[in-house]
Amino acid sequence: MLIAGASGFSGALAARLAWRHPRLDLVAITSRSQAGRRLDEVYPRHRVPMTLTELDLQEAEEVDAAIVAYPHGAAAPVVSGLRDLGVAVVDLSADFRLRDLDEYGRWYGEHGAPDLLYDAVYGLTELNRDAVRRASIVANPGCYPTAALLALAPMAEAGLVDGVVVDAKSGVSGAGRGGGDALHFSTVDENFKPYKVDGHRHSPELEQELRVLGASGPVTFVPHLLPLDQGLLASCYVTLSRETDKAELRDLYRGRYADEGFIELVDSPPGVADVRETNFCRIHVALDRENGRAMAFGAIDNLWKGAAGQAIQNLNLMLGFDEAEGLR
Amino acid sequence: MLIAGASGFSGALAARLAWRHPRLDLVAITSRSQAGRRLDEVYPRHRVPMTLTELDLQEAEEVDAAIVAYPHGAAAPVVSGLRDLGVAVVDLSADFRLRDLDEYGRWYGEHGAPDLLYDAVYGLTELNRDAVRRASIVANPGCYPTAALLALAPMAEAGLVDGVVVDAKSGVSGAGRGGGDALHFSTVDENFKPYKVDGHRHSPELEQELRVLGASGPVTFVPHLLPLDQGLLASCYVTLSRETDKAELRDLYRGRYADEGFIELVDSPPGVADVRETNFCRIHVALDRENGRAMAFGAIDNLWKGAAGQAIQNLNLMLGFDEAEGLR
Amino acid sequence: MLIAGASGFSGALAARLAWRHPRLDLVAITSRSQAGRRLDEVYPRHRVPMTLTELDLQEAEEVDAAIVAYPHGAAAPVVSGLRDLGVAVVDLSADFRLRDLDEYGRWYGEHGAPDLLYDAVYGLTELNRDAVRRASIVANPGCYPTAALLALAPMAEAGLVDGVVVDAKSGVSGAGRGGGDALHFSTVDENFKPYKVDGHRHSPELEQELRVLGASGPVTFVPHLLPLDQGLLASCYVTLSRETDKAELRDLYRGRYADEGFIELVDSPPGVADVRETNFCRIHVALDRENGRAMAFGAIDNLWKGAAGQAIQNLNLMLGFDEAEGLR
Amino acid sequence: MLIAGASGFSGALAARLAWRHPRLDLVAITSRSQAGRRLDEVYPRHRVPMTLTELDLQEAEEVDAAIVAYPHGAAAPVVSGLRDLGVAVVDLSADFRLRDLDEYGRWYGEHGAPDLLYDAVYGLTELNRDAVRRASIVANPGCYPTAALLALAPMAEAGLVDGVVVDAKSGVSGAGRGGGDALHFSTVDENFKPYKVDGHRHSPELEQELRVLGASGPVTFVPHLLPLDQGLLASCYVTLSRETDKAELRDLYRGRYADEGFIELVDSPPGVADVRETNFCRIHVALDRENGRAMAFGAIDNLWKGAAGQAIQNLNLMLGFDEAEGLR
Repeated sequence: MLIAGASGFSGALAARLAWRHPRLDLVAITSRSQAGRRLDEVYPRHRVPMTLTELDLQEAEEVDAAIVAYPHGAAAPVVSGLRDLGVAVVDLSADFRLRDLDEYGRWYGEHGAPDLLYDAVYGLTELNRDAVRRASIVANPGCYPTAALLALAPMAEAGLVDGVVVDAKSGVSGAGRGGGDALHFSTVDENFKPYKVDGHRHSPELEQELRVLGASGPVTFVPHLLPLDQGLLASCYVTLSRETDKAELRDLYRGRYADEGFIELVDSPPGVADVRETNFCRIHVALDRENGRAMAFGAIDNLWKGAAGQAIQNLNLMLGFDEAEGLR
Repeated sequence: MLIAGASGFSGALAARLAWRHPRLDLVAITSRSQAGRRLDEVYPRHRVPMTLTELDLQEAEEVDAAIVAYPHGAAAPVVSGLRDLGVAVVDLSADFRLRDLDEYGRWYGEHGAPDLLYDAVYGLTELNRDAVRRASIVANPGCYPTAALLALAPMAEAGLVDGVVVDAKSGVSGAGRGGGDALHFSTVDENFKPYKVDGHRHSPELEQELRVLGASGPVTFVPHLLPLDQGLLASCYVTLSRETDKAELRDLYRGRYADEGFIELVDSPPGVADVRETNFCRIHVALDRENGRAMAFGAIDNLWKGAAGQAIQNLNLMLGFDEAEGLR
Repeated sequence: MLIAGASGFSGALAARLAWRHPRLDLVAITSRSQAGRRLDEVYPRHRVPMTLTELDLQEAEEVDAAIVAYPHGAAAPVVSGLRDLGVAVVDLSADFRLRDLDEYGRWYGEHGAPDLLYDAVYGLTELNRDAVRRASIVANPGCYPTAALLALAPMAEAGLVDGVVVDAKSGVSGAGRGGGDALHFSTVDENFKPYKVDGHRHSPELEQELRVLGASGPVTFVPHLLPLDQGLLASCYVTLSRETDKAELRDLYRGRYADEGFIELVDSPPGVADVRETNFCRIHVALDRENGRAMAFGAIDNLWKGAAGQAIQNLNLMLGFDEAEGLR
Repeated sequence: MLIAGASGFSGALAARLAWRHPRLDLVAITSRSQAGRRLDEVYPRHRVPMTLTELDLQEAEEVDAAIVAYPHGAAAPVVSGLRDLGVAVVDLSADFRLRDLDEYGRWYGEHGAPDLLYDAVYGLTELNRDAVRRASIVANPGCYPTAALLALAPMAEAGLVDGVVVDAKSGVSGAGRGGGDALHFSTVDENFKPYKVDGHRHSPELEQELRVLGASGPVTFVPHLLPLDQGLLASCYVTLSRETDKAELRDLYRGRYADEGFIELVDSPPGVADVRETNFCRIHVALDRENGRAMAFGAIDNLWKGAAGQAIQNLNLMLGFDEAEGLR
């Protein structure tokens, strides 16, 4: 397999996971900006002793699978080229997440491969496993939607969600390399703030998938930047469509996630440190019955379950492996 | 003046502010656990060269004002004793915040001075300035309600609030000294989590004051612990009672806070670092018109405007000084 | 095997490593203060689904190996009891590190099992591998000496060290649970300070082993507390006994550590994040030729190579396994 | 007065201090990269409501004093231009710190105003107060030399220093804005590392001034990067030229710094948080008598006493004010 865009945070972690994966054979890692450097020089802690190269699609003929970790816009043509070669692709960008081309255009500009949009499968593994198995292109979900959707799915599927506020908080690695002053240590350290309160690109993705799950009512999403590196928490405040109780909620979640190896239902609120450097999503549900509201908290590592970990999980399925291979 | 309970985080900061205050004469700082130690040994950075003593109410006869920074329950009898001596008191505990004795009992147990409950004034300065001026006992607000109420007040007063979710996040100093493993560096560092999701003591205080301001609808409040020392952000999601627009909201806030020296209205979301070590509250309001929701974000330093700073602000008013004395 | 004292930071990590170890069978984890609780409740991130129990030496008859993670003083009798049962023991405390009983007494008080002192092997694996293999009791080294000795060994063995200053810095987890105000998040966050400058307990251990390796001259050691959780760096400033050059130093280190799987020699200074959550020690050597000084920097994760990781490494050797089993 | 280069960390703090200074009249703040923006937009927490402009030396005729916070190389011509106008200048760059033009060239390249080199006074206030008072150009010391020299001066002046290792650690703000990946939050957070071990630009400055003070023997200096924003600690290990004892050292330091308002001698090791957001230098001296070594630890806020604070302190002296004006 190959990883295109392995010098960013998500791509580099994907390279680490693929390199140590018992059934994947990582043959190339590419980078537009760092070609020629060794990955273990750029990211010592990942210990991947390979050299970053320029992407050459002709060489890609030999691989059967790829993870593309390019920015949106730049990803679509690469995914398209790989697809033409018959390569199974997991795309970490937003390019194939939105079903609606107009909506895509509104948030991201012109689409680079609109004809492929309907071939792609939205790869939130636990909610879409069968489709992922059969997919040739998987659009790996955004980190915020991953945590929020997993936290909300059982309620949404049960028709309980009639409006939701998702107040989400992410560690800095979710914003990627670069970023200039905004991600300088001195800006982030001992600080905490909301951002893009007038509209974050994960909003339409979140709303689209909540509708698929059966949620109604207004969806408000606001992200915040945490002064930590890896970790993401989505605090979801649900306006309930009807009365419920703790027992029903508990049964709903236990039933829905009974066989899920990467979902951990917990009796007290999760901390993001509980899932750091893992592919787990920890979920806690609580009820504010007096107010007719339920609360669901989902914690993930934004680089793992929120990006590279879930990409490997999806690739495992596409290739017919156990979905947990290389993620334990 | 004297400060009772000056070895906790809030009390110690109150001591620092009083010590450098141009018009206050700090004659005693007391502590139940650290009597005999110098405050500049316990908190080098505050540089208050005074020795902590045991509280002796008889000596308090000579002072005209006091800040009490005891835990709830322990505060009431001290406040009562000081009041009997004619001392103007700002109480940092929750003992005099709730109007309803039953509600107090439900959250805190038996009240130590129930007869004084109705003498106390809720000291959110910007919302209650005149009453504070005339008060003999001021119940200094909790840190979470301070940020949330200041962020919401203009909308609540205008009858726009028909339900609100307050997702609040505080730095660790808000939890005080002690705390054992829960506040050990290794527990908090690189972590972030909600807590007391089934009911935090600041909930009834927040709801009580929101009702006073004119808010209707359900009030949900969930606190989270940030991996930083000083700083608090309240993200408030308002279900609007009627349609509004950005211009109306802006005018509402500008009008309401036009003459407020410690309120900063800003055009982009505030970070808690913007107000660290200050008595300011920074507020940003945004509109999610499509969903009929408004969002208000209030950032404070939990130890300053959320505790000791506001205590000094209130004390200034009670003593007839400019309310900003010693806080610039 | 069993782990005694699994509720502390090092013991808990040892439990995690043993639980996932392909050749170890973890049958009991004990705790004096937390017996009855599940370890995955105390440390969610370790995901060890076992319940902590009281230590019962009689049950220990069934195990062949143990890691003891008790404080010094409390460890010796437990190690002694296990030894009587024929259990191979790795002791994480300081009880069996010092060869000189008087020196032990000076720093730690009376010794609980002085007769065993000479049976114990100092378990800095890379320097003492053969003795560890044959040992029945291994005294696992302190975290500071581990980093400093690995950084200095090649020079010391070559007779180049004629005096050294070890300026060492450790993350907070090295100080363990408890600690009260000194390890409260608000004390450590955004802070950095030296401690025990008049003598740290790792000093005699460091000096003892440096002498064994062949170092002469004064040894000064000062620890500092870093505002991070896991990670330790020893910066070692060597007064050289004779002239040398970069090439000689490089050859010395490459030769000495050529076959070491957990030693990483690097061409630029290591950061502690490079080795977090690993058993590696990263070493960089530099020469200040003008001043006749060499500098060696050793970075480890204080809980892994500095405690539990090295304990597993040693246990692997004692039991005849590949020393890297369970540590990859 | 004016501040040239007010958009960097040091220049912006200088602007804040000057803006609130009771006797300075800040008339212009300039920036090469951010001209046109308001400083309170770039640095909200400094609350300086002025707009950054392009530097125009002709306008500078009206000012009597300036702080130049340009990078080395760019500073010299600006200082030269200001000097021609008769403006008293404190320069934060390295351009006028080294006495030896060759040494300057070796570390920084060609000098932009070599003729002024000998007019400039090295502005470590406590060591050079009289010369600063009479100076027209003050070379404000580097942050590392400030802490190390203040910690070592009494011993050096007494002829006790016969070699020293300075192991120094600085918060990230010391590295300034920019910095790219190296100062990205994700690189620095939970990390700690030495840098420039083969020679840091503060080395020749430190050695030059130590010689002036009377130190002999080798001087080794290694900086490390701390995962915190503001704070710097220099740990200095002195090879003593003769025997001494604690009492002599204590008397030496007390005598030397008896009248210094910004020096705090303390009986236990200082933490950098003790001096954050202050102009103080906290110093602790200890003796390792057995090894013939003394240890001196100096803690400062790198942006205050290590840069902008000391610049104001020096400017106060040059203008005939109390040196603590605006710094309390």
